Amino acid sequence: MDHYYAVIMAGGGGNRLWPLSRQDHPKQSLKLLGERTMFQLSVERLLPLFPVDRILVVTNAAYAADLNQQYPALPAENFILEPAPRGTAPAVALSALHIRRRDPQGMLACLTADHYIGDEARFRAVLAAAARVAQQGYLVTLGIAPLFPATGYGYIQRGQRLGTFDGFEAFRAVRFQEKPKLAEAEALVADGLHSWNSGMFVWRADRILAEFARQMPEFYKLLLKIEADPAVVAQVWDDAPNITIDYGIMENADEVAVIPADGLGWNDIGSWESLRDMLSSDGSGNIVVGSEHLGVDTTGVLIHSSGGKRLIATIGLSNVVIVDTGDVLLVCPRERSEEVRTLVEQLRKRAGGGEFL
Amino acid sequence: MDHYYAVIMAGGGGNRLWPLSRQDHPKQSLKLLGERTMFQLSVERLLPLFPVDRILVVTNAAYAADLNQQYPALPAENFILEPAPRGTAPAVALSALHIRRRDPQGMLACLTADHYIGDEARFRAVLAAAARVAQQGYLVTLGIAPLFPATGYGYIQRGQRLGTFDGFEAFRAVRFQEKPKLAEAEALVADGLHSWNSGMFVWRADRILAEFARQMPEFYKLLLKIEADPAVVAQVWDDAPNITIDYGIMENADEVAVIPADGLGWNDIGSWESLRDMLSSDGSGNIVVGSEHLGVDTTGVLIHSSGGKRLIATIGLSNVVIVDTGDVLLVCPRERSEEVRTLVEQLRKRAGGGEFL
Repeated sequence: MDHYYAVIMAGGGGNRLWPLSRQDHPKQSLKLLGERTMFQLSVERLLPLFPVDRILVVTNAAYAADLNQQYPALPAENFILEPAPRGTAPAVALSALHIRRRDPQGMLACLTADHYIGDEARFRAVLAAAARVAQQGYLVTLGIAPLFPATGYGYIQRGQRLGTFDGFEAFRAVRFQEKPKLAEAEALVADGLHSWNSGMFVWRADRILAEFARQMPEFYKLLLKIEADPAVVAQVWDDAPNITIDYGIMENADEVAVIPADGLGWNDIGSWESLRDMLSSDGSGNIVVGSEHLGVDTTGVLIHSSGGKRLIATIGLSNVVIVDTGDVLLVCPRERSEEVRTLVEQLRKRAGGGEFL
Repeated sequence: MDHYYAVIMAGGGGNRLWPLSRQDHPKQSLKLLGERTMFQLSVERLLPLFPVDRILVVTNAAYAADLNQQYPALPAENFILEPAPRGTAPAVALSALHIRRRDPQGMLACLTADHYIGDEARFRAVLAAAARVAQQGYLVTLGIAPLFPATGYGYIQRGQRLGTFDGFEAFRAVRFQEKPKLAEAEALVADGLHSWNSGMFVWRADRILAEFARQMPEFYKLLLKIEADPAVVAQVWDDAPNITIDYGIMENADEVAVIPADGLGWNDIGSWESLRDMLSSDGSGNIVVGSEHLGVDTTGVLIHSSGGKRLIATIGLSNVVIVDTGDVLLVCPRERSEEVRTLVEQLRKRAGGGEFL
């Protein structure tokens, strides 16, 4: 595994845990599950597999100093900086470019900075298996067995079986399906042929860059300029498209594989409801973080308080999320917690709303 | 009306608007409806009828300085101090005693310090009418036409009609009924013979003291000691019973009258839901006091924020009360807002709960 690199994609601004996650305090920098930030957890689970000098971080310039401070053992030169956020496709391209310069045989695992993985040993095992598949030239995606008809994830359809690698089966991926409507999601879960798209990928740098050359030739020209002189990135970045790797590359790529990476205990913590699933509740099914709670007839409530000690008192509530950051208080039913996106959009349009973003 | 005095009973600790009302900030001292405290409003509505030197306040020593500061024109000697809170019966007795010393022919209107009166001119008219009835020796209670089968108020049953006084009818009161169960309340409202007990009374000092002598003879002996030497009040007050005027005197008193004081626009603001009825809502039926609100699919919500400017964001809420005092946050359905009493009781029993009372 000498040519294997991990790239943690840590540039997302993330507003799904608003008001706790903010532009200046994105999800990867939050201590959602204990004393370590999501970024620290993301680095640490890789260490038994990757030496620290082969763990890279692609992020925007604004976050780099904070992330490096969270994990000072990461060499500063391992931070690949996007001048401005542009979706995952340009981030992936920059990191592949970086690795191809450093190691022409380089292979990379593109990983997330803000997901939870319950079984870290199994996670490393699947990354090792995926490297064997990627070595053959496949663009490997890690799939997750769908637990329910989620409308917030993409789906990957499995095709021909490619074989078993270190105990993990790999399949040709025949279709990428972006976030579906509920009825469609139900069908995708029912047919037994689909995995959730985890947003984690393994591929050789040369292979993914060849796909950029084929599918996004204009952007690839820009990449070649950056490869020739990395200092020009700031000048040319305005022309980088704002697009995800799924839309930009994966949906029409050649030789795509999927490894159903089941049993990882994966959770993207993509909403307050998802975070709730990660935390342990008291006898009434309530979860209280960071404040004192006094409840009458209150069940299934998540209270997350980071704005200073206060007493949070509730009567007759069930399955409600209360998030208190001091400057913002959010109250909503648990099952509607994904709609914080709507609030964030409204704040973007609102005079003075920026202070809360 | 030379011998007519108003006594504002302002000793209540009031926890029904908790967490806004506290032991140190009782309801009468809160600016619930604008720029004036409930106590200030209670004094001001009396002024056209009572000269300021005939407006007295009975309260406990802890509140007196603050109340006098709220209305400095009230003479300091008009504050009648209870050494410790003991229910309305002892407060009424102390004030009657005070007035009998000052004016043997004195008559007093015992009034509340924390209620809202919409039609103040009509209120003064009913007080004038009640004085005429009280002059004849009746213990006059002001009744309110019941708007719904409330279980939080006492009821008074009207008997024989005594006559019309300045446009108000007066009746003999034949029964006092303390806070009923719902089924009973429905019957009381349906029979058309009952008024809510407003907790406001008019009587001659000698008459009410005669009732104390008859019905609470032990306490009356103590009152006589205080009458002889007001300085002993602090020493003997421990022996004063903790009882309301309704239980202690009215239920078994002779010559009780009730004046249905309808059309006052009376509201005791006895719960967050009652306060809500007093405030004007926006187009979505939401009422927001003291903070910025951003709502998605939010209707009929009362947000009361006094703990500093913050953004309160809600999704999918209807008919919920959110009260933020900085150190405490309360969230509950509107129709259960009276249950803050339960929270207050729990805090009383809880180690460290006192800081929130």
